[in-house]
Amino acid sequence: MAIMVDNETSSSPAGGAQNDSSSSNETPTPGPHRDGRRSSRYRHVAAYHSQQRHSSLSRDSNDSPSFLGFRNLAVIVLVAMNLRLVIENYMKYGVLICIKCHDYRKQDVVLGSLLFALVPLQLFIAYVLELAAAERAKQTVGRTKKDDSAQEGERDQRAVRNIWRFALSFHILNIVLNLTVTSFVVYYYVHHPGIGTLCEVHAIIVALKNWSYAFTNRDLREAMVNPAAEFPLPDIYSTLPYPRNITLRNLIYFWMAPTLLYQPVYPRSPRIRWSFVAKRVAEFLCLSVFIWLLSAQYAAPVLVNSVDKFRNLAYASILERIMKLSPISLIIWLAGFFALFQSALNALAEVMRFADRQFYTDWWNSPSLGAYWRSWNRPVYLFMKRHVYSPLIGRGYSPFLASTIVFTISALLHELLVGIPTHNMIGVALCGMLAQLPLIALTAPMERVKGPSGRIIGNTVFWVSFCVVGQPLGALLYFFAWQAKYGSVSRMEN
Amino acid sequence: MAIMVDNETSSSPAGGAQNDSSSSNETPTPGPHRDGRRSSRYRHVAAYHSQQRHSSLSRDSNDSPSFLGFRNLAVIVLVAMNLRLVIENYMKYGVLICIKCHDYRKQDVVLGSLLFALVPLQLFIAYVLELAAAERAKQTVGRTKKDDSAQEGERDQRAVRNIWRFALSFHILNIVLNLTVTSFVVYYYVHHPGIGTLCEVHAIIVALKNWSYAFTNRDLREAMVNPAAEFPLPDIYSTLPYPRNITLRNLIYFWMAPTLLYQPVYPRSPRIRWSFVAKRVAEFLCLSVFIWLLSAQYAAPVLVNSVDKFRNLAYASILERIMKLSPISLIIWLAGFFALFQSALNALAEVMRFADRQFYTDWWNSPSLGAYWRSWNRPVYLFMKRHVYSPLIGRGYSPFLASTIVFTISALLHELLVGIPTHNMIGVALCGMLAQLPLIALTAPMERVKGPSGRIIGNTVFWVSFCVVGQPLGALLYFFAWQAKYGSVSRMEN
Repeated sequence: MAIMVDNETSSSPAGGAQNDSSSSNETPTPGPHRDGRRSSRYRHVAAYHSQQRHSSLSRDSNDSPSFLGFRNLAVIVLVAMNLRLVIENYMKYGVLICIKCHDYRKQDVVLGSLLFALVPLQLFIAYVLELAAAERAKQTVGRTKKDDSAQEGERDQRAVRNIWRFALSFHILNIVLNLTVTSFVVYYYVHHPGIGTLCEVHAIIVALKNWSYAFTNRDLREAMVNPAAEFPLPDIYSTLPYPRNITLRNLIYFWMAPTLLYQPVYPRSPRIRWSFVAKRVAEFLCLSVFIWLLSAQYAAPVLVNSVDKFRNLAYASILERIMKLSPISLIIWLAGFFALFQSALNALAEVMRFADRQFYTDWWNSPSLGAYWRSWNRPVYLFMKRHVYSPLIGRGYSPFLASTIVFTISALLHELLVGIPTHNMIGVALCGMLAQLPLIALTAPMERVKGPSGRIIGNTVFWVSFCVVGQPLGALLYFFAWQAKYGSVSRMEN
Repeated sequence: MAIMVDNETSSSPAGGAQNDSSSSNETPTPGPHRDGRRSSRYRHVAAYHSQQRHSSLSRDSNDSPSFLGFRNLAVIVLVAMNLRLVIENYMKYGVLICIKCHDYRKQDVVLGSLLFALVPLQLFIAYVLELAAAERAKQTVGRTKKDDSAQEGERDQRAVRNIWRFALSFHILNIVLNLTVTSFVVYYYVHHPGIGTLCEVHAIIVALKNWSYAFTNRDLREAMVNPAAEFPLPDIYSTLPYPRNITLRNLIYFWMAPTLLYQPVYPRSPRIRWSFVAKRVAEFLCLSVFIWLLSAQYAAPVLVNSVDKFRNLAYASILERIMKLSPISLIIWLAGFFALFQSALNALAEVMRFADRQFYTDWWNSPSLGAYWRSWNRPVYLFMKRHVYSPLIGRGYSPFLASTIVFTISALLHELLVGIPTHNMIGVALCGMLAQLPLIALTAPMERVKGPSGRIIGNTVFWVSFCVVGQPLGALLYFFAWQAKYGSVSRMEN
């Protein structure tokens, strides 16, 4: 094969000789060179080999050539290889997509809808709590104004702290109740993992919002009772000072806004561009259908075929299955990321006139796992930073310990999010999240390496650990656990 | 799946909060910010949403982010997908590599060696011819010096032209005899396609060298008889003027040198770096083994499995087979290119102290098919340019016609090179080469497009037409023809 092309013949096409100036510098070539048409004699003696030259891939060569063409080739081969898999899949399975085949039970839909309707009530309870706390604080401040002494100030602070202890215990009860009831219902009564996941995500989002609402209002309350010049509140809050922000309208805005951080005031965009909303919604719908097609046609057969391999612990086959699944899960993941963080959150933000749209930064370039977790999901990252990490640092915890606590909380929430809807608390999501800590420590030095090679190594570790191995392995493990528990191959991946 | 990761939790690892300056500009974050430890209060009120920001993938965003991470991802997925195919191949076929299985016949080896030994004799005949022509020309010049008139000059030119006609007819006879005998022997008596290809390549190289030797010496002779100031010979030749270059030693250097262009004098490197030679030879050997492994383990099963599909004309399956073969043939092609044009030719050039090592330029970036044919195989390209294209242009042919003639010659040589050793003159190589002309015309405008998009489109057309579809399709067709003729699946691909 290689020899066949050894002597492949090449030549200049129309006008080619003129383009190629590198070898014609000492030769009477045709065209506009030298004396024009008169130079038409003695062509065969042209000294094309007239100077020392190095092969461009040799080390002797001073200017390394561009390799942009190989980037194009990589993309082409990726497309071609996947297209081949599409054809192979079609020849093997035909069309697996079936709109009427969804086997969710009526009970699932009813319970899911009920949960979706009831969970936000938690925020109403939080509102009532905060309203009472604000009333109590206003009374304290009113008394302080009359009687302004150092002793009084201390007593006020103690009073505010008492209010907080009281409010906190109810908030915690509220949050725990919400998560427990949702998880209990989903685990025992909602069979379909898709519906279960939606309910669980909703409950966790509302719980985190409640947490943020409670703690932010506590600090606002303390700042009102004990205003200190050296700790000014952010300027942006001055238009709505505490306790004027404790209104149902303000809370409903926070409930709907694409953020987990409660602020009395947010930066707002001037108007709603409905065409922008329509485009984002269309993107979201198209990508959702795309993900569904990929799952049903490509991911499902791989998952089904891998159950036996897991049962027999055939490691080479399991590895092969992970690698077969990884491009599919990667595309689903990228499409899902775009659908949620770009399309859905931007659409929601536009409708809410919420101006801070930085829901993610360029996580795909992450030189380390740490950079990835800081950039891919900004709403949760900012929540953890403001309400867990920073307060712990403020209490004197070391950054390492604070990070460990953050990732432990995160790991528990992940386990809830995946284990409950799949009815298998097997701890894979928990371990996956906790495994981030050593990976972060391992790749952290890559951020500080000068030159591109460190960043490339860190980025490669990120992609391989997270997307190429981590996610498909997790999906396979939960699918296997599901099969072990329920036996028949179900449409889990829809 | 997408939902599972919706709420994934993120946080700053050790020291992360300091790195992330974008969101901490208005917040009392820990560490060296603001008042140090004193800013530890009111953390929960920090206004992380303090200004209007766009999602980086939105059109609203002014600075488009870097996508370098996705380039890394593409490479990783390519490696992972191919690694999976390696595992799949192993599970399906085991190890197919077998050193003792080569079934070449004794007759093939004997005839091949004989051809390798005899073909260079052609150059000896060419030498004798040129020696006689030079003697004759020297006599003419001697007579001219005595009797210097315009009429004499014209008679001299006629005499030289007569010498050339005489020499040319013998040269052509010599070349035709060489190619015919080699092709005849290979087609009818050398069964093994590998040995046949080597013999055929060797014969064609020697024929082209003979052609170049004859025409270059013709022009040198004419220049000696009729020296004209406006057509000076290249300066580099002045150290060895005609006919002092007509020596056996000079011809043997040309025979061994890595070029198809005869020049009396070449740029030379000062000394032989044997370590350089050793490295290049080691590269060549490793790559040869690599190519052999790939062919035996990966290409052969695909070829064997595709014979049925060709017989039944199952087009979807044929397409699938081409796509399955294309990454393999592509890697073999790239490895073969490097082994021959970088390793082998550089090693040979070093031994011969041949200083012009530009055997290729950066063909992988070619924005058009024309640029590719001008850059991937410089020895043949320069031969065609100096001895076919330029002379035709000099005779007044249009560039298009000259290119067509070049590609037709090239197509015929390709058909010889592939059709003869595989004993199937099915014309695929011929058509493949002739199909280059419309493709070149089609992609030529891409070279002139400003901005990168034109170059990327042209480069994509090049890779797809040539490497992703063209080569594997050609290999499949010749393999099928071989199977149709000889029945049993033979180790053609070794």
